[in-house]
Amino acid sequence: MKKILLATTALVGFAGAASAEVSISGYAEMGIAGGNRGADTQFWTDANVTFSMSGTTDGGLTFGATVNLDDLTGAVGPGLAQGGESMYISGSFGKITMGDTDGALDWAAQEIGMGSAIADDHTTHAGYYANSGLDGTAGGQIARYEYSFGSFAAAVSAEIDTSIANNDVFGVGVKYSGDFGGTKVGFGLGYQDNSVRSVYAVTANATMTNGIAINVGYADLDAQVIGANDTWAGIGVGYTTGALLVQANYGSYDVLGGATVDGWGLVANYDLGGGAVVMAGYGTGDVAAGNEIGGLYGSEDTFSVGLGLSF
Amino acid sequence: MKKILLATTALVGFAGAASAEVSISGYAEMGIAGGNRGADTQFWTDANVTFSMSGTTDGGLTFGATVNLDDLTGAVGPGLAQGGESMYISGSFGKITMGDTDGALDWAAQEIGMGSAIADDHTTHAGYYANSGLDGTAGGQIARYEYSFGSFAAAVSAEIDTSIANNDVFGVGVKYSGDFGGTKVGFGLGYQDNSVRSVYAVTANATMTNGIAINVGYADLDAQVIGANDTWAGIGVGYTTGALLVQANYGSYDVLGGATVDGWGLVANYDLGGGAVVMAGYGTGDVAAGNEIGGLYGSEDTFSVGLGLSF
Amino acid sequence: MKKILLATTALVGFAGAASAEVSISGYAEMGIAGGNRGADTQFWTDANVTFSMSGTTDGGLTFGATVNLDDLTGAVGPGLAQGGESMYISGSFGKITMGDTDGALDWAAQEIGMGSAIADDHTTHAGYYANSGLDGTAGGQIARYEYSFGSFAAAVSAEIDTSIANNDVFGVGVKYSGDFGGTKVGFGLGYQDNSVRSVYAVTANATMTNGIAINVGYADLDAQVIGANDTWAGIGVGYTTGALLVQANYGSYDVLGGATVDGWGLVANYDLGGGAVVMAGYGTGDVAAGNEIGGLYGSEDTFSVGLGLSF
Repeated sequence: MKKILLATTALVGFAGAASAEVSISGYAEMGIAGGNRGADTQFWTDANVTFSMSGTTDGGLTFGATVNLDDLTGAVGPGLAQGGESMYISGSFGKITMGDTDGALDWAAQEIGMGSAIADDHTTHAGYYANSGLDGTAGGQIARYEYSFGSFAAAVSAEIDTSIANNDVFGVGVKYSGDFGGTKVGFGLGYQDNSVRSVYAVTANATMTNGIAINVGYADLDAQVIGANDTWAGIGVGYTTGALLVQANYGSYDVLGGATVDGWGLVANYDLGGGAVVMAGYGTGDVAAGNEIGGLYGSEDTFSVGLGLSF
Repeated sequence: MKKILLATTALVGFAGAASAEVSISGYAEMGIAGGNRGADTQFWTDANVTFSMSGTTDGGLTFGATVNLDDLTGAVGPGLAQGGESMYISGSFGKITMGDTDGALDWAAQEIGMGSAIADDHTTHAGYYANSGLDGTAGGQIARYEYSFGSFAAAVSAEIDTSIANNDVFGVGVKYSGDFGGTKVGFGLGYQDNSVRSVYAVTANATMTNGIAINVGYADLDAQVIGANDTWAGIGVGYTTGALLVQANYGSYDVLGGATVDGWGLVANYDLGGGAVVMAGYGTGDVAAGNEIGGLYGSEDTFSVGLGLSF
Repeated sequence: MKKILLATTALVGFAGAASAEVSISGYAEMGIAGGNRGADTQFWTDANVTFSMSGTTDGGLTFGATVNLDDLTGAVGPGLAQGGESMYISGSFGKITMGDTDGALDWAAQEIGMGSAIADDHTTHAGYYANSGLDGTAGGQIARYEYSFGSFAAAVSAEIDTSIANNDVFGVGVKYSGDFGGTKVGFGLGYQDNSVRSVYAVTANATMTNGIAINVGYADLDAQVIGANDTWAGIGVGYTTGALLVQANYGSYDVLGGATVDGWGLVANYDLGGGAVVMAGYGTGDVAAGNEIGGLYGSEDTFSVGLGLSF
């Protein structure tokens, strides 16, 4: 009684007939994860299924939506609560995306990390910044408008605060991608403001023909309380050769009041083909602000080794 | 690694081979919603995926089941709890549907509302009645048997109360649909009893060739306590021309003890084709019984504007 | 807008093109369930959808993962918590399965029950043992390695306890299946230890050409507290003819301290074809240890009748 979904390539002959469609993809992780941050070394198992829906209006606008099973508990709520889904409509006017999507800062800025680890060790250490900006500070329902012109793209975004504080988040971002004699270069600049904090991030990245990739970033987080992260700077250096990717990244926060919190991550990916990738990740950093014991910033580390499986 | 599901029309050549199948459809909403009932004006985003399963026995009975992701949290429980799913078996004997399905009253009666709004404003105002009858008063696990004969169809339904009160719900419904010189006419009559309350609803609707549609309804809700809704009457008038549908509806409850609670709704839908519909909805009504402030029935309203996207 | 998934058989022509794929299957139950254990006689409705993902690496290893909607609430958590998913990688070295999967004891041993009932009455009575061994006593994240050689197969398994007790579970199992003049014979032997308890199970089963099948099992549960189940023995006798399967099973636990808890189950399945099976189940047994009223072991029974629908 099993139904098999066809891979995209098998469907070329039918594509014209399908005006609205639901495509399904899956991802699973298996391996072990450990370190001195909390849990013992333990098996790591996870699986998810994503539904990507798309269609086209009679007038040629394209639209779509994405839901995945991992976000589903949140998705059960009514439309006023952010529930892990996102949807878009797109045309010559640009593209509007709503729901669980990046604000303009995160959309424009590129993270310093590369590759994947089953427990994301290399991108969750204490010195890592994922360009989250002010996203999620007002309920997480984001609307973003973006427009591309040549090598440039720009976006504006909003997130409405329905609490009494009324701290709506607005953002703007610009990014550029180009090719200089084989070296792929990208720049990103994003800004967000919620009338309490004004944050920005600027990032640059270059991938050379010899397989070396360098990502750098700087962010001003406009801390308002002693002990909060105020500014951040980071760098990642990666190398890809054949099926292998390795990368190291380092980031450091200046905390309002004087301290520094930093950390670094290491990742190696080996592509077995067909959707299976061997992944090893490591992250270490200062104990994050608020978690220090007896006022001391010790260090903590995590690691994971396993398979990432895409279907 | 994405798999694309084919649209139905592309599959004609294979249909004979598929005796049991799972079809997938999606629906998403994006826009804004507001009003003076609770929340600020805010982004509205929602998405859902529905799995519709069907099969045929060797003897020619057809059967099927439906699950959707929005109802999934409830669907996790065991079979004795109603969990958002429904399933059926059908043959020359009629059709039996069980689970999260309409009781015979709701099955027979037609609502006065038409069209869709992303926040359902026009069908959730204080004066609206959705023919829910006594459905859900005994756990929500409903079994319904229906049978069609020509332009008529009839159904009986049951919902078993496993509480000590033992107030099982039984229902019966009859409906008719016909065509008089191009005017499509429908009537519905439903009755439910749980040994405490005996409720009924009667509805009529007509859709004329000029695009005007009129729906009317009356219900006796057999209120048992002062302040509960006792009787209801409502009317909806809609107009469809090309891709546009507009409708207004009005409904009014007589409350046991003397008061009246009424409200009206307005909806406009414009079909962009391909599954995308522009939707605007408005609803206003008296503050519902029990929500009045200082004993006063004020008024409350909600609105929403956005896109409904079907995949 | 509905998308129909093709049945496997229709896809033979495309199979070579799909290197990684997601297949979808569904299962639904409708009927009634009752008995004197808790609930009144009540409608039983349930539905589930399972996603089975599979792929092949360039080097010929096969891998896959399974998620189903019923387990989804648990699946939402991070990879360190067991969430209902399982995934595997397989090659000439054998097969490694992780996540929500059987430990080596359950993998090797065969249950005495046959057939299905919508409420599983015949396999949940007080005298039934499902070969669960020590599975789930340490969080439920299991890793199992298995290898086949001719008619034999062997497995080892582990489940890591991250609590302070550190009672990791290790298991080993062996099974055999063969054919002696048409009689299909199977043996299973499984052992698990968590440094507190050492449990084992041994099972044997034979299915004769006349349709009669006999399953027997014995388990030592190594009870550590008075009143806990210490040993178990059971037998099941089934008969299959055409579309009909009937089976009765009986099992009995010796409780540490002297008492006996036993029960029996009865099931009948009639296959309507196309995925629909009429199912009737009955189970009765002593009130399980801990549930007795006034120190007395009374008896309790459950039954269910309905349809199991596979898609």
